[in-house]
Order: sequence, then C-alpha cells, then structure tokens
Amino acid sequence: MEIFYSADIYGNSSLRLGPEESQHCAKVLRKRVGDAIDVIDGEGALYHCTVVNDSPKGVEANINEVVNNWHSHPYNLTLAVCPTKNNDRYEWFAEKATEFGTDCFVPVIGEHSERKVFKTERLRKIVLSATKQSLKARLAEVREPLSVKEFIRETAVADAVKLIAYCFEEEGAPRRSIKAELAKRASDKIIVLIGPEGDFSREEAAMAMEAGYVPVHIGDSRLRTETAGIAAASAVYFEYL
Amino acid sequence: MEIFYSADIYGNSSLRLGPEESQHCAKVLRKRVGDAIDVIDGEGALYHCTVVNDSPKGVEANINEVVNNWHSHPYNLTLAVCPTKNNDRYEWFAEKATEFGTDCFVPVIGEHSERKVFKTERLRKIVLSATKQSLKARLAEVREPLSVKEFIRETAVADAVKLIAYCFEEEGAPRRSIKAELAKRASDKIIVLIGPEGDFSREEAAMAMEAGYVPVHIGDSRLRTETAGIAAASAVYFEYL
Repeated sequence: MEIFYSADIYGNSSLRLGPEESQHCAKVLRKRVGDAIDVIDGEGALYHCTVVNDSPKGVEANINEVVNNWHSHPYNLTLAVCPTKNNDRYEWFAEKATEFGTDCFVPVIGEHSERKVFKTERLRKIVLSATKQSLKARLAEVREPLSVKEFIRETAVADAVKLIAYCFEEEGAPRRSIKAELAKRASDKIIVLIGPEGDFSREEAAMAMEAGYVPVHIGDSRLRTETAGIAAASAVYFEYL
Repeated sequence: MEIFYSADIYGNSSLRLGPEESQHCAKVLRKRVGDAIDVIDGEGALYHCTVVNDSPKGVEANINEVVNNWHSHPYNLTLAVCPTKNNDRYEWFAEKATEFGTDCFVPVIGEHSERKVFKTERLRKIVLSATKQSLKARLAEVREPLSVKEFIRETAVADAVKLIAYCFEEEGAPRRSIKAELAKRASDKIIVLIGPEGDFSREEAAMAMEAGYVPVHIGDSRLRTETAGIAAASAVYFEYL
C-alpha cells in the first residue's frame, strides 16, 4: 500500500499533492487520471481518492472517502531526546520511534551535549517517510531544537506523565523502571526526556524533578542514547498493546 | 568504561588479546605495562586485569579478579530474523537487539526472501562491538544462514517459548500479542521467528505451527522487518524488567 501526503486539502472534496509527492506519484509510480490513490493529511485522516490531474508538477485528486483516526494510537507521546554525536543514529531513532508511534520529537540540547546544533529539515522528511511506510495518518511534529532547561521550563505545568531517564543514581531518589511508571500512569499524554551521551547535568536533573519529572531507568542494559529513545517508544507502545 | 574481548584465556591467571583488540589496546588507547584493563571472554565473565605485555601484536595481561555472569540477563533469546533487502537495516537491528540482550541471531532465508545470501562476518563484528559498548560479558552467537524450514525443523523439539510473527491472519488461528504470549511463558528460553519483507509463505507458517510455534502479532503498527526484530528484543527485555 503506497501512501501520499498532502497539506492542501480542500474540505472533503479534493486535494493537491506538493511538488515531491506529485513527482513520486505521477512520474515514479505513473499514476494517471482515473487511478485510485490514498492520501494522508498528517492530522490523522486517510483519504481514498481518484486522480483528476496527473501532472508531475501538481497532482490533483477528488476525495471519495475519508477515514478519520486511521491507524491511530491511544496515547500522545513526546520524545525529547538529545541529539547524538552521529546524526545517523538520531535519524534511525526517529524512524523507529515513528513506526512504533510518536507524536512529537523535540531535539533538546543538554549542558553536556557535544552536538549543540541540529537541523530538523532532514528529520522531518524521515519522519514523514516512516509515517507513510508504517501506514499512519498522523504525522509527528518535529520541533526546532531548544535547551533541556527551556524544555523543562515549558513543560513544568504540562498535565502529563513526565519521565526523565538518566544514568546516575541520585542520592535519596531511587529510580523506578519506565515500565512501572507507565503502568501507574494518570494520563495518556506522556513525555520522556532522554539525555546526551554525557548524561544530563545534575542541575538539569534537579530542575526536571522540580518541574514534576519522575526519574526512571530503562533496565540494566547500558543503552546508547538512540536506543534509549527507541526503548522509550517501544515501552509505551507495549504498555498499550 | 572500555572493554576488551579475548578468546585466549588461560585458566583464571592470564590472557592474551587477539590482533585487533591488541592494536586497539596498545596503539589507540596506549595501554602500557602495569595499566589496568577489563576483558570479557564472551561467555559471561569479566576479568579485571593488569597489562604485562603491551605489544600491539599481542597484548598479554594477568587476571586479578573474575566477575562471573557480569550484566547477564535472566532469559535466553534467539532471534531468527530474515535478512532485510538493505543490509544496513539488519546490522542496526542486530546492534540494538544486542544492547537489549540477545543470545543468538539466526539469519533465516524465507521462500519470499529477496536476499538469499547473507554474510555473517560483518554482523559478528557489530555484535561484538555492541556487546562491549553495552557492557555485557556474553557474546551472542551469530549463526550461518539457513532456510526458514530448516530452522523450524531444527527447533521442532526445542523446549522453548516459540513465537512466529507474521502479517496475514490465518483463518481460524487468531493471533495474540507477543506481550500476552510472553506473559504466560513456560520457559525462559525464547525463540522469535520474523519473516522477510514479503512475509512467510503459507507453507512456512503452517510448518511452524506444526512445530509448536505460536503465531503472534507485534501490535497495530506496520513495522519494518528490522523494527519487528527490535520490537521482539525489547518486548522480551521489558517483560523481564
């Protein structure tokens, strides 16, 4: 099943694909006027359509049927993960987390982050591609990078299950497993904060706790940053399975 | 923490690193006579050692202390996963599954597999590297490829929780989730069989069921082959968390 994405949907009657999707649809897959195509709006709906203009510059289609909340997941997950030194690893994480089901990616920059700059454009493409490939209609948001502290400040009042995974054991603050914390959740809105290779600073961890984040561990294995991100996505996925 | 691997351990008294590990130890990390190094045997033990010969051609060390079952996991997991078209994806899967904890990788070739040939040498290196990086002492076995049917035949009498994940719904054989099946396991020896992009053939699936494999699904998301492999590894990991 091949899925296209469109940001230009006119009511429930017709839509238009953007340049890249039009190219792929008309040129690569050679869809012609009268052919059926399936299009997502990135907001959760799938549209069964018929092509009415097969120009590679802008494919247009009439909408025959709308399926709302197509293959949606029963939670809302924000993964705020510090960028890895190697960019590939972050892209893999985002692809896999998208397949499991993630609603928002936040590249947060920690005080111990080696990588302080992060380009979101490529990540958006990867997330879109994984969304279509894994047959989802809702496209995860990829936010512009911000500091760990800014993100904590911003989410301090958020009504969500807020978890922070770090490596050091804080005195007097024993961590429970992410699985145990998810099992006793009071909300289906979940935020998981995962630090860089060099871990969070003590100050960041203290600030997170102050803001209502619960410290968790992701088991006994020492997981790489991107693996911890994938583990968080799969822990939530399996919790709702 | 930097870990080395040695296959040449003489009793509990001394050991020798192979060519690559010696090079890394003596040349890259510049370990000298008298320096402390940590070495795994790939069988589950960690050795705290002192270098007595720092030649890059063959580092030798005396063993001061042995830690058995170092960072071991409480299950035995075999992942028999069909190679992906793109080799990178399989390598990523093996790296991540090693971080979670896997005991044996079996590249099985299905009737619908596009890739019929698979080289294990590179995968062994990746698994060793991920084992050391994630601080484990037991090295997962990477078997030579064999057909799905051969593997099923071989494991027909195995006393293990045997699960097969495939996409089609067999008539009269509704699948339960991998999580539910793991929860009611009768053994800590677990085998998960995951098919190629083109799924198992009906004949392979029937043969697996005949051999005691229980059909499972890995949730509502359509996961790529390598993501299904990672999901299986993380499902087992979280089941024991």
